[in-house]
Order: sequence, then C-alpha cells, then structure tokens
Amino acid sequence: MELINKLLQGDKRACARIITKIENNEDEAVDILKEIYKHTGKAHVVGITGPPGGGKSTLTYRLSKDLSNQGKKVGIIAIDPTSPFSGGSILGDRIRMNELSTDPNVFIRSMGTRGHLGGLSKATHGGIKAFDAFGCDYIFVETVGVGQSEVDIVRTADTVVMVMVPGLGDDIQAIKAGIMEIADIFAVNKSDLDGAERTTAEIRMMVEMGNNENKPSILNVIANKNKGILELIEEINRHKEYLVLSGKLEEKRTERIRSEIITLIEDEIKSRIFNDKDIYKLLDNVLKNVYNKEIDPYSAKDKLFKAIV
Amino acid sequence: MELINKLLQGDKRACARIITKIENNEDEAVDILKEIYKHTGKAHVVGITGPPGGGKSTLTYRLSKDLSNQGKKVGIIAIDPTSPFSGGSILGDRIRMNELSTDPNVFIRSMGTRGHLGGLSKATHGGIKAFDAFGCDYIFVETVGVGQSEVDIVRTADTVVMVMVPGLGDDIQAIKAGIMEIADIFAVNKSDLDGAERTTAEIRMMVEMGNNENKPSILNVIANKNKGILELIEEINRHKEYLVLSGKLEEKRTERIRSEIITLIEDEIKSRIFNDKDIYKLLDNVLKNVYNKEIDPYSAKDKLFKAIV
Repeated sequence: MELINKLLQGDKRACARIITKIENNEDEAVDILKEIYKHTGKAHVVGITGPPGGGKSTLTYRLSKDLSNQGKKVGIIAIDPTSPFSGGSILGDRIRMNELSTDPNVFIRSMGTRGHLGGLSKATHGGIKAFDAFGCDYIFVETVGVGQSEVDIVRTADTVVMVMVPGLGDDIQAIKAGIMEIADIFAVNKSDLDGAERTTAEIRMMVEMGNNENKPSILNVIANKNKGILELIEEINRHKEYLVLSGKLEEKRTERIRSEIITLIEDEIKSRIFNDKDIYKLLDNVLKNVYNKEIDPYSAKDKLFKAIV
Repeated sequence: MELINKLLQGDKRACARIITKIENNEDEAVDILKEIYKHTGKAHVVGITGPPGGGKSTLTYRLSKDLSNQGKKVGIIAIDPTSPFSGGSILGDRIRMNELSTDPNVFIRSMGTRGHLGGLSKATHGGIKAFDAFGCDYIFVETVGVGQSEVDIVRTADTVVMVMVPGLGDDIQAIKAGIMEIADIFAVNKSDLDGAERTTAEIRMMVEMGNNENKPSILNVIANKNKGILELIEEINRHKEYLVLSGKLEEKRTERIRSEIITLIEDEIKSRIFNDKDIYKLLDNVLKNVYNKEIDPYSAKDKLFKAIV
C-alpha cells in the first residue's frame, strides 16, 4: 500500500495520516498496523509521568530538542491529562510547541483521554507502532499518570521516567507504594527550588528500602534552565542497555503485547455487542429487566455472556 | 446472610466490610451485590468533577455537612486522582476529613485509581450499590475527571456537578467541547476571586450556545467560606426532580447499567483468560510469536478470541 511505503520511507504526512486513521478507529487502520508490525521494535519507548505541575512537558520538550540535536528521530505522544476538559491542547506552552513542530526530527501527536472510538489505550499502542515503523529512535509517552488506563499505558513503556518536584514533603511516604514499582528513573525537576535536597534524599531512602532488582536511579534536573537534560538522556540510554543485556527488554515488551492483546479482545467483545443486532436487542431487553429490578446486573451479565460466546 | 441484613439495617461496620469485599474483588462480593441489588435505586448519585485545584473536596465536604444537618444520609466515594502516587489519601485536609468521619450521617470511602483487582469502575459501581442499599440519600462520587475510566464513571452519575474556578481565561473556549455534554450544573467555586464574573459570563455564553435540551445551570459558590452551598443543594434537588419528571432518570440509569454490564463482561473475558490453563498457555505462546514478529498482535487476537469463545 502506497501510504505504508511512504510511512516506512519517513514521510511525515503519511505518518500523520496513518495515526489519524488509528485514532479514528477506521477499518483500514488494523490492516495498516498488521502490515507495519514487522517494521517495529526499534524505537525505545519512554514513559514520562508524575504528579501535575512537575514540568513533564518542559522536560519532554528539552529531551526531544537535545535528542534531535544528536541526530535522533523523536516521536511524542502526549496523553493530555486535561483533555476531557481542554479538547486536547498539548505541552502547555504553545510557543515551545511551535518550535518543536518545526523541528524536522521531532513528531508530536496529542491524544485526548476521550473521544477515541476504540479507546485511548488502543490508540496509543497504535500510535507507538506508527512512530516506530516511521523510524523514530525514541518515543515519549507523556501522561500525568492518573487514571487507570493512563497508568496501564505508561507502565508498559521500556523506560519510565517519574518526574518529581521539591516540596512533596510528608507525602513522600504516602506515594511510596504506587511509585516504586513503575519508576525506572526519578528526575527531580526544579531542583534549584527550596527543599530539592530533602526531596532527593527522601526518594533515595525510599529507593534504598525497596527491593527492586534494578534500583531506580535519581537525577536532578532543571528543565526550564536546560540543566541535567543530557545526563537524563544518558541515564535513559543506560537503562535501555540494562534492559537489553539483562533480557528484561523482552520481558517488558512481552508484557506490553499481553496488555495490548487483552485490550484488543475486550474491544472485539464490545464491537460484537454493538454490531450484532440480536445481541444488541438482547442487551436492551436485559437493561429493562435490570432497571426494573427483575434481574440483577451480575446475572444479566451471565445471560448476555452466553449469547455472545 | 447476616452481613447483608446488617447493611440493610444501616450498620456502618457491615457497610464498610462489604465495600472492602467489593474492592478486593472477593468471590462473595458478587453474591452480596446480587442480593442487595433489589434494595438499590433510592440514592441520588452526584458526580463532583472538574479540573485539579478547583476545590472539589471542600465542596463535597460542605455539601455533605449541610445535607447531614438536613437529616440526610450521605455516602462519599472519592476516586482520588493522585492515588497512583498518594496511596489513596482523601479529601486533602485531614482535619476536615476527621470531622466528617465522626458525622453519624456521612460515610466516606476512598478508592485508589490503581490496585483494584476487578478494576476501578467495577469497584465504584459496587460501592455505589452498597451505599445505596445501606440507605444513603445522596452519594457523591468525587473525581478529578481526567482519565478515561474516571470520566466514564462520572458521566453515569444522576447529576454531574462541574466545579470551575475563576482564571481559566482563554481556556474556556478549549474546554467547551468536553464539558458541555457531561455537566448538569456548573459550580463556579472561589467566586470571590478576581475574574469570577468573567468566568461565569463565559460559561453562560458557552451554555447558551449549546443545544442541550436541559441547559446546565450555573451557580456561584465559595466552598471554604460556606457560601452558596444550600443553593447548590437546591439546584441538585431541582435537577433530580427534572430527571424524574422528564423520564430522563430512567434513561440515565439504564445507561449506567449498560456501562456496568459491559464492564462485567470484559472482566469475565479477562478472568477466563487468566484462569483457564489452556488459554493462558495459548496466550503465552502467542505472545512469544508476536514478540518474534512471526504474527502481528491483531491476528494473534483473532486466534485467541476463537479459543475463548
């Protein structure tokens, strides 16, 4: 197919058009993804996550600029946390975004957390594949990391960078549990602010107490002053090497495939329900019965499940 | 069952124990939910959502206090936006929370956005039913409203209160699309701040331009000064009445049941994959093939789907 060939040759417009097809869940999208799949696996997927206000977008911007300067091709998929409300603005600062979008090595795509016919997770997985086949060396997936789907997405990245900021104070104990398992690198941003040392020390203590096989590393950065960015890139590359040498890359990517396939199966079920007239009719009837308390939702599910399979 | 009888009689500890069972996805939970389902439908479910920093928790706190003073029983399910990081702290201010938790008419339950075996959506649906059967007149579901699952949850509430704050400025145009469809009431909080009038005017314009059958109402509140709370309660009650009289309540609740049943079916699929040894083995094999690019994820899904059904 012409469009796929163009994508594989690095045609920017073809890439954009394919991602749009994926986002819109067009029938053609699956054929394209099937076809390009064998050309994927080269890109290193980096999740950029952390609490709101930590400067994730600025950091992603700086990382992308520096990688582009190193001659690398970078894809950014921004899962905008506020997009149910904002309609999908990206990277906050429009000036910076414009600068990035004119960089011939950087490709940005914003995905809202709603309005994806096939679901955010499916669209993100597809977008990653398109960027990968397109020839990106790095793909950043930026998300605020709240919301179940978003956390599920970021945890399947090859490397997860958790962006922290000074002043989390007492909360550091509370955040312990959730963070430990998904962070590969902690980037303490705005590390020129008061309390940065304390925050770093607290993260270090937390990391020491954990029993991960590969202890997450901790870096200080000041994204808006462009400090520590090259070191963070080095750290990402070091983690990438670790993944390859330890065999963990295969493990992580197999998990990503597992999560994707399960999502695809769920989608298949949903589309069966919505496209099969008989099942749809049965669901409608069952809904009435449930609403009228003639049957409970759990027994209704059993009934419907039997009809589907 | 003893525990269910206690719940129906309004025993607080029984209610807490049942919700814990639901959260832990214990086998018993489904039996309990089947049993209590016929005792549900009395509570009015109110979603409290909006951008971070808007004061949703303070507002939820004030609404609950005032409703309690009116002799109403209130359940709060807080889907804490930061809980992947915070481990599930609730309502921010601990003093306020303690005050609420000693109120005999108010029952709080925090649900993290991670760590729910059966999924957040399933746990929230179950929690709402437990609070409902327990005798709550109002159930508040508080969520930052980012994240696909979270938005899906809040949109199934009977009444959706969108908490806004002054100073959104130019963003108001951008947020238009996502908000219009899910808000029943806009509460402009911190309305003593600069720019409150402008924000209110902009929301009004937005609402006027929309073509909803029932235009969302707009209220000014100052939650931390306890202003406008009773008016907001009245507005919620007015919306409730509108839903009943217009027949929209049945429509909305049927949609909630639809969303719940589809979630349950998805869960069933997942548990089939994970519990059936043959399918699990097949999935593992397929994963290897996909990883080695011998098959693409989409064809793998088809193969697996056939085995499941």
